[in-house]
Amino acid sequence: MIKANDPALHSWIEIAADSEFPIQNLPFGIFSTPDRDPRVGVAIGDYILDMCVLGRQNFFELIDLDPNVFHRPALNDFIALGKPIWRAVRNRVSELLRNDNDEISGNSNLIRECLVKQSEAEMLMPVKVPNYTDFYSSQEHATNVGSMFRDPQHALLPNWKHLPVGYHGRASSIVVSGTGIHRPKGQTKAPDAEAPAFGPTNQLDFELEVAFITGKETALGQSITPYETEDYIFGLVLFNDWSARDIQAWEYMPLGPFLGKSFASSISPWVVTLDALEPFRVKGPEQDPRPLPYLEFLGSRHYDIHLEVLLQPHGGELSSISHSNFKHLYWSMGQQLAHQSSNGCNLQVGDLYASGTISGPDEGSYGSLLELTWRGTQPLQLQDGTERKFLKDFDTVVMRGYGEFDGIRIGFGELKNQVLPTV
Amino acid sequence: MIKANDPALHSWIEIAADSEFPIQNLPFGIFSTPDRDPRVGVAIGDYILDMCVLGRQNFFELIDLDPNVFHRPALNDFIALGKPIWRAVRNRVSELLRNDNDEISGNSNLIRECLVKQSEAEMLMPVKVPNYTDFYSSQEHATNVGSMFRDPQHALLPNWKHLPVGYHGRASSIVVSGTGIHRPKGQTKAPDAEAPAFGPTNQLDFELEVAFITGKETALGQSITPYETEDYIFGLVLFNDWSARDIQAWEYMPLGPFLGKSFASSISPWVVTLDALEPFRVKGPEQDPRPLPYLEFLGSRHYDIHLEVLLQPHGGELSSISHSNFKHLYWSMGQQLAHQSSNGCNLQVGDLYASGTISGPDEGSYGSLLELTWRGTQPLQLQDGTERKFLKDFDTVVMRGYGEFDGIRIGFGELKNQVLPTV
Repeated sequence: MIKANDPALHSWIEIAADSEFPIQNLPFGIFSTPDRDPRVGVAIGDYILDMCVLGRQNFFELIDLDPNVFHRPALNDFIALGKPIWRAVRNRVSELLRNDNDEISGNSNLIRECLVKQSEAEMLMPVKVPNYTDFYSSQEHATNVGSMFRDPQHALLPNWKHLPVGYHGRASSIVVSGTGIHRPKGQTKAPDAEAPAFGPTNQLDFELEVAFITGKETALGQSITPYETEDYIFGLVLFNDWSARDIQAWEYMPLGPFLGKSFASSISPWVVTLDALEPFRVKGPEQDPRPLPYLEFLGSRHYDIHLEVLLQPHGGELSSISHSNFKHLYWSMGQQLAHQSSNGCNLQVGDLYASGTISGPDEGSYGSLLELTWRGTQPLQLQDGTERKFLKDFDTVVMRGYGEFDGIRIGFGELKNQVLPTV
Repeated sequence: MIKANDPALHSWIEIAADSEFPIQNLPFGIFSTPDRDPRVGVAIGDYILDMCVLGRQNFFELIDLDPNVFHRPALNDFIALGKPIWRAVRNRVSELLRNDNDEISGNSNLIRECLVKQSEAEMLMPVKVPNYTDFYSSQEHATNVGSMFRDPQHALLPNWKHLPVGYHGRASSIVVSGTGIHRPKGQTKAPDAEAPAFGPTNQLDFELEVAFITGKETALGQSITPYETEDYIFGLVLFNDWSARDIQAWEYMPLGPFLGKSFASSISPWVVTLDALEPFRVKGPEQDPRPLPYLEFLGSRHYDIHLEVLLQPHGGELSSISHSNFKHLYWSMGQQLAHQSSNGCNLQVGDLYASGTISGPDEGSYGSLLELTWRGTQPLQLQDGTERKFLKDFDTVVMRGYGEFDGIRIGFGELKNQVLPTV
């Protein structure tokens, strides 16, 4: 077991029993306050540990790193140091926060200096994303979409069970939780219309996804195996792949999704390390046909992480509208990343690889309004009595995710964005 | 007319009559030599003008810029200064190189310091590319591909004449001319095969394209008109969108091209400014149906630029295999960029937008082997007596492009890459 994951650990910081940031989590992010410029922090309970302060005071002197790496507006330089360093830093932070350690807890000035209330900080984009790929790895989602848009009898295309289908997405428009999402304009054509028209989308949707971030690069021409990928994946975030269904439907043939997606994608601010998710490893679904050797990845390579989507109308209350789980994916992260590198495409530090919409087997577990309302034919009933086929202006979409073991919850925090009117 | 484009200008540097880098061109690039670390240069005849040396000696002091901007491994910081600065710098370089100016030419030490022979320099990637989009804007190419892979009677899909179809590509694997291109491996399935297989592609191809680079960003949510795009486009490069047709055919449904493309794309090292291409503006093809207002772009918005592809077998001689022209495109660069921003997707400095394969109306003008050999059914005869359906290991693909006015040639230099065996 990784040292910092021990369920017996307790911190000298008071942490609520249902907190998603117990001492066993320790996710990394980038924050700022009016007094602190953007820098690396670690979430602990309701606080952020200022890694820049600790670095400057030599708390990581036994680890081979330049402490200035924490004084950066993105995690890229830190994660580029590689897995042995991420792990050593997380273990050291765990040690410093343990209730039997007084290096920080014994120094009230230092406590004030290095702990910031999350409620008083602004969370920023955790990484600068050089490349973003979106996969399509939920069998249920691909089947639902194939049934709606093509043929229910042949909903999954012939390639789907042989390779993790994916496409390159737009990196520039990936934004952090809290950013307003302007309703995009675009070209659409109603089935009965003579000609296309241009205007704000009428079918704005979310997609519930989980994305991983790489912390190691490969050279152009190099490929890695699924087993090797575990040294490349730094951590995970929740991912909302905002989609305009009417724009997407008209534009996507034959080259795939483009402007129906690229107006915005949003991510949760805390990157939960792959190490912290170790207790939630489970076997994935049986893969039949057996993947080709370059995709073979035996063992427990999926993660049991509960996922939830909530929708809050303007001024109204939150309605929980979907419960899904990261373990429902057919293709694992390692298979996705090995596939991405199989043609020699070079991986970079900070790359973001999203899962595709994670739908479960039953209707309450679908990861998009497209599926939850079956293309708008079965509107959702919200708590406040209103209905939704697609998102309205000022609706807020919230995504949550966590794993649980021994009564300990390892969570991602909220991914929360409000829909704003067209600019 | 832009001052630096005057056909009457002559330089004190001796320049061959058929040079692609006369004083009217002045493209920007990044170079290094054993004595000079990566920095900005301007091509002039067979030489490179070291902008770092000139900047340090205050030759640009009347322009509002920090001369250190030329001492960078990419053009991004320079082009981010905006069009008035690019233009002022190009005009100033033109002035310094004119035969009636002795600021450099009168100082033999300075000449030695600031002029580097192109043959003694290594050209590097001119920009760091944060986002890359590939359009599909040649009607002839889209028709040829639609005929081969779908239905010759309905080769163009219904959306094609209403919007510039495109997709997001992989930025990490864009490399500069001269880089070896390893034959990618991938998953393919022959039509008569029971199951897919994994191995080196048997259908490696090039695609003749031109790409433009943006030098100005937009905010998320902001859209620009086609007319405004001319302030955003810094310059153009030749672009080879290397493609593995067998990988592409098996993977591309329903989300578009992915690993069949992302193993490599290559660009020519000199960025020819939009300003230098001003003399080659021509009207494009008539657009019927008329584009929606957000894509309307009246006037001469296409560019008459001759394009050529040559293929050189290992140890053999060059065969010219295609002659095309940038003016054949249906959608103009301004329409492409306005479409990209129409949903509020934010543009960034250094973004690269490729045209899609530029095929002309007749067989000798097709921009890919796929079309030139009609999917391998009509092999190409090369000068050395050998045939090609697709590329062989150690084949070299060369692309060239230039415009001509008043006997002056404004060119891109060569885009040249050799195919190497699978790693």
